[in-house]
Amino acid sequence: MGKSWVNSWVDSAERIGADLHLDLSDSTGASGASGPGGRRAALTRALRDAVREGRLAPGTRLPPYRSLAADLGVARNTVADAYAELVAEGWLTARQGSGTRVSERAEPLRRTERVPRKAPPRTRGPRHDLRQGTPDASAFPRAAWLASYRRALQQAPNEVFGPGDPAGRVELREALTEYLARARGVRTEPGRIVICSGFAHALRLLFGQDKSRGGAAVLRGPLAVEAYGLGFHRELLAATGVRTVPLPLDEDGVRGDRLGRERAVLLTPAHQFPTGGPLHPERRAAVLDWARARGSVILEDDYDGEFRYDRKPVGAVQGLDPARVIFIGSVSKSLSPAVRLGWMVLPERYVDDVLAAKGEREAWASVLDQLSLADLIASGAYDRHVRRMRQRYRSRRDRLVAALATHAPHIEVTGVAAGLHAVLRLPPGTERSTVKAATWQGIALDGLAEFRHPEATEPEMPAHDGIVVGYATPSEHAYGAALEALCGVLPPPGE
Amino acid sequence: MGKSWVNSWVDSAERIGADLHLDLSDSTGASGASGPGGRRAALTRALRDAVREGRLAPGTRLPPYRSLAADLGVARNTVADAYAELVAEGWLTARQGSGTRVSERAEPLRRTERVPRKAPPRTRGPRHDLRQGTPDASAFPRAAWLASYRRALQQAPNEVFGPGDPAGRVELREALTEYLARARGVRTEPGRIVICSGFAHALRLLFGQDKSRGGAAVLRGPLAVEAYGLGFHRELLAATGVRTVPLPLDEDGVRGDRLGRERAVLLTPAHQFPTGGPLHPERRAAVLDWARARGSVILEDDYDGEFRYDRKPVGAVQGLDPARVIFIGSVSKSLSPAVRLGWMVLPERYVDDVLAAKGEREAWASVLDQLSLADLIASGAYDRHVRRMRQRYRSRRDRLVAALATHAPHIEVTGVAAGLHAVLRLPPGTERSTVKAATWQGIALDGLAEFRHPEATEPEMPAHDGIVVGYATPSEHAYGAALEALCGVLPPPGE
Repeated sequence: MGKSWVNSWVDSAERIGADLHLDLSDSTGASGASGPGGRRAALTRALRDAVREGRLAPGTRLPPYRSLAADLGVARNTVADAYAELVAEGWLTARQGSGTRVSERAEPLRRTERVPRKAPPRTRGPRHDLRQGTPDASAFPRAAWLASYRRALQQAPNEVFGPGDPAGRVELREALTEYLARARGVRTEPGRIVICSGFAHALRLLFGQDKSRGGAAVLRGPLAVEAYGLGFHRELLAATGVRTVPLPLDEDGVRGDRLGRERAVLLTPAHQFPTGGPLHPERRAAVLDWARARGSVILEDDYDGEFRYDRKPVGAVQGLDPARVIFIGSVSKSLSPAVRLGWMVLPERYVDDVLAAKGEREAWASVLDQLSLADLIASGAYDRHVRRMRQRYRSRRDRLVAALATHAPHIEVTGVAAGLHAVLRLPPGTERSTVKAATWQGIALDGLAEFRHPEATEPEMPAHDGIVVGYATPSEHAYGAALEALCGVLPPPGE
Repeated sequence: MGKSWVNSWVDSAERIGADLHLDLSDSTGASGASGPGGRRAALTRALRDAVREGRLAPGTRLPPYRSLAADLGVARNTVADAYAELVAEGWLTARQGSGTRVSERAEPLRRTERVPRKAPPRTRGPRHDLRQGTPDASAFPRAAWLASYRRALQQAPNEVFGPGDPAGRVELREALTEYLARARGVRTEPGRIVICSGFAHALRLLFGQDKSRGGAAVLRGPLAVEAYGLGFHRELLAATGVRTVPLPLDEDGVRGDRLGRERAVLLTPAHQFPTGGPLHPERRAAVLDWARARGSVILEDDYDGEFRYDRKPVGAVQGLDPARVIFIGSVSKSLSPAVRLGWMVLPERYVDDVLAAKGEREAWASVLDQLSLADLIASGAYDRHVRRMRQRYRSRRDRLVAALATHAPHIEVTGVAAGLHAVLRLPPGTERSTVKAATWQGIALDGLAEFRHPEATEPEMPAHDGIVVGYATPSEHAYGAALEALCGVLPPPGE
């Protein structure tokens, strides 16, 4: 004990004074006004590092202030201050009479903690990305967004940088009121819009249980959903404890007449996801009748409502009865999922509960992004971008249809000319092998089965073979090759 | 029936053709490339508005295409298209032989839905805002932030605008690894950092139950907390179903020796919130010993760790044992709560669970803000801003202390010179009346009782009278008046 004590003393004094080659002049001096200077900071850091990395072992006694100060050519107080600081942090311990030692608790960084965690296997991305759900990332309107962001930041009153209104910035809610009325036939006012981080956040705000209110959520299940839809939404709802009940679909959209005792229904009326048809007017009416008769509510997922190519977009169901519909949208398809902004248009009676679920202050959506989006919409740049993207995606879809007509005329594109994806109907029994063949060829896409509700049953809801092609995802220059590759993996005509 | 039918026919034909004064030339023509032109759009909109607002009542029959087209001087097809669109949207119904009518389901916007929801009583703000928790909103570094944002946006590769990594952008995690090591003594690497929207989001990610995993959360309660802390955090935890157990505090910080069977402890070691002391080195050691012995974890809330004025900031507990501490920070105090960005530095074993709780893609933090913050840190502008604010807040605190010394020498400022707030110790029994007097004088601030855990008990945890003064909140020019007003409401010396 005595021996090792002496050794460690000598070791540490030697290392600290000499081997560590503390070059106190190279300190940044950054602490300037707020601390007693760079030398102390540099010494503190060097000592801390030495303890951390195990070069100064737990229990090691440090040299007295005086000796170390002399060795390093610094003031005695500099050493004293550095020691004191490390004692306050817990790296060193100081006891009357036994000097300053490396704390027994200062564990050197363990091997497992020190090894850099591998970057998640750099999802090198498939050669051809035809997954649905993402706009062309190369088309983000950088210049327009930056211009709006700059204006918003420069014009923002100071209160913008304080605690935020959980409803979202009024500038954005005003811009959305006007825009959604014009582009989507939504009838609302700024006081009934709540800004959120996207569709998933909206679902969480509506269905998340709040134990402080006795487990009450804004809405309760069971929730009727379309028999085909995003698995991600179903899983999110399941995680929240909400049971989803699949409704059969046919070419006129969801069978509203099959709605029963559910408390709410989640629909994609403008462009059924993923099968691609709009909800027939009579079905819209049937769903509204049901909601009115039962006091239920319709959740309208307007995920790509702006993108219709054969005619003007069909207006939102919300406009037919604002008291029965919660309309939910976001910029994830129109601009980019990197801008984490969405909105809920609520019937009056839900506003307070949703705000309560969101919290006392804005804790989610970036306030500066909100102001930037408000400016982008108000300046007309958002409309221009959507129009440009509509043309681009329309031409992508046309090229897809043309390529199929030439190379695989037996494959049908289902649904209307709209959105950022299309479903290709495949001969029975060929879906799995087609997806597999695509994977082999470096094409990422999903089979239709991925989107089917696990409780949907035959014969009520026939399970067709198909693939979902996200034609918006590739950049413009990569799309031709992706199409060509796709045509190469489609099943031949049945005999 | 027949009569009213005729009347409504005549009414509507007349209104639509004449009274509505449809000026089809004033359409924006915005639908240009994507639709058959502005006239159809304008007509569709005018008709939709008429139905919405109840000017065309449910059941009303619309004039035949031909007549309306002639009245308006447009092509027959334009009217036909407009009708078809409104049928698709559900505003109109078309039946063979009975023409086109206003749908029975198209409810006019009800009165309660139409009345603009009042803006929340324009929280005109108190005359003097001394509430804790917010930095000086007038000091947001607009120019530096905009410069970083511009660089980030211009240099971003296209993939930035696609689906985001739920861990957060690697650029930001790398910048934080370096910054937190330098400024806070945190030992980590980018793979163990997860970006979030702030401290509350971090708590939700750690303690939120996920029913899809059988109700499993990353961490479970009971959670030990300091007997004084933010009520908001306690409520959030309660809403998540986590029981919090108060630990007594004294001038050396929290009584780590009172830790028992809790699974985790939430601490503010650098600057106890709100009482203002740093956690004594021996207490740090005791908490670490407890965590190691019981396999528990320490949540380190580093809410204002950068702001210490009397000496260099005390390093994070995390640095002493990165495997036992979850370190949580954000820009809410250093920059602004309007930038919704925070971070969790995790022991290796929690990383995957936290990422699973966060979701498959980034659904929360703005990716562009992440890149901007990464640039702000890497460029040194973040350090410069923190240093500037440190000087500003230090002078605010000095002025507070000086004002008290002059006008209320019997009132003690507790805690160390640090942070964005101070606690003024008041004579016993005077807290409530002081807060009331402050409110009367237009001063917003909180009494210490607000922050006390409801289960904290005397005599173990004495309930001192005091007020929490957020001296960072006012803008620079408003601070002097706020101080003066504050001194005016403090209780006189006890006799």
